[in-house]
Amino acid sequence: MGTILNNQVYDNSCLFCKIVQGNEPKVLVMENENFMVIENKFPISPIHLLVLDKYHREKKDVISGKYSQEGYFEELFSIIYQIVVKYGLDKSGYKIVNNGAGYNHFEHEHFHILGGSEIEPGGST
Amino acid sequence: MGTILNNQVYDNSCLFCKIVQGNEPKVLVMENENFMVIENKFPISPIHLLVLDKYHREKKDVISGKYSQEGYFEELFSIIYQIVVKYGLDKSGYKIVNNGAGYNHFEHEHFHILGGSEIEPGGST
Repeated sequence: MGTILNNQVYDNSCLFCKIVQGNEPKVLVMENENFMVIENKFPISPIHLLVLDKYHREKKDVISGKYSQEGYFEELFSIIYQIVVKYGLDKSGYKIVNNGAGYNHFEHEHFHILGGSEIEPGGST
Repeated sequence: MGTILNNQVYDNSCLFCKIVQGNEPKVLVMENENFMVIENKFPISPIHLLVLDKYHREKKDVISGKYSQEGYFEELFSIIYQIVVKYGLDKSGYKIVNNGAGYNHFEHEHFHILGGSEIEPGGST
């Protein structure tokens, strides 16, 4: 993989755009050309990370497949897996969450990676 | 999209393999070449669906990218989006969950689609 995705634009009113540009504080875990992984500021589990799109690609566009021709989700899950391994969640358990259409707080695409607890964070799905 | 994925094998000791083969009861919602969507037998939200791989592809293989060259996640999110639209969750909210390495009950790859409640099922992530 390693495709560099198109649509590299920012929305300067967006908090996540400010974070990826270095204009808001963050705890950086990992980044590549397309995604940045940071610690969630309000964790609900011992490990709670956010995989942020490095640009302002919106959830409604991502979920409807606007970037699928470019292999968006393969790229995304590639970095998710690197994180899972880095934190040993491939041994202890991982929960990947993607919210949209109102369950989310920010329209800028982001996935949650949860782990570090004996039972599934947020209760059994 | 519409790639037909390789590795079309069953594990006949696997409940999900029995379900996709028609050897266990299910409430079918949608299917295509690669995935089958059914109602979760033990829902935690008004809408709680399972997107099952139609074959016995294991979570540890999927998450580590074994099928990414074939566009596995693009295929998967394509049917997820069809479901999101079918149930109006693109208006009312959706939560997509993927568990692994012990948080899951079955190693056969499956994703959860949750919705139909005013607030995020399982609590805010």
